[in-house]
Amino acid sequence: MSNSSGVELPVLEPEAMCCPPLTSAELSEADAVKMAAMFKALGDPVRLRLFSKVASHPEGEACVCDIQDVGVSQPTVSHHLKKLKDVGLLTSERRGTWVYYRIEPSVLAAMSRTLDRGSA
Amino acid sequence: MSNSSGVELPVLEPEAMCCPPLTSAELSEADAVKMAAMFKALGDPVRLRLFSKVASHPEGEACVCDIQDVGVSQPTVSHHLKKLKDVGLLTSERRGTWVYYRIEPSVLAAMSRTLDRGSA
Repeated sequence: MSNSSGVELPVLEPEAMCCPPLTSAELSEADAVKMAAMFKALGDPVRLRLFSKVASHPEGEACVCDIQDVGVSQPTVSHHLKKLKDVGLLTSERRGTWVYYRIEPSVLAAMSRTLDRGSA
Repeated sequence: MSNSSGVELPVLEPEAMCCPPLTSAELSEADAVKMAAMFKALGDPVRLRLFSKVASHPEGEACVCDIQDVGVSQPTVSHHLKKLKDVGLLTSERRGTWVYYRIEPSVLAAMSRTLDRGSA
């Protein structure tokens, strides 16, 4: 049931996700590690475009067959999508021939909230 | 007056900043390059902690002398702060002996908006 590393990353549980807005409290070292991994995943132009292609598809889901036109090879696309999955920004599901990618709204919301200035 | 197809990087002008929410429209290649640079800047745990230290200080400004306790050398702190400045997330000002860093709220807001799911 658990993965081989034994390290659980509860990134898919909205309530368990860090973090408060950066403007309201200093990030702990542990939270900084977790959040930095997510920002880093979006810190590559091709990966960010792939993510935006999935996110802007109806209902935040796209077939991998529909999002490959980003100017890199198919293995590179797969590599980037795996990185986005690893940090919890995307989930995937195979249906027949194709793999479908879906954004994880709670993770996106947590990142947005962290950058939000609140009422300012 | 408008810059709908401009090639400049007006990162400090709130209204000119990209981008629409990722869930509403696919990022252009140019916007992806610009946004990825900002996400990448926050994609390092030490840099993110430094940024959160500035952001959570009163009025979003901190003396460099108050934010150096992140477990790395002073030159490394300076290096990280420069990266955050380069992408427009921080500005700095020397006053007497010390340099003061300040968050750029419009850039933070633009990043938050890009990750926002809107009403969903």
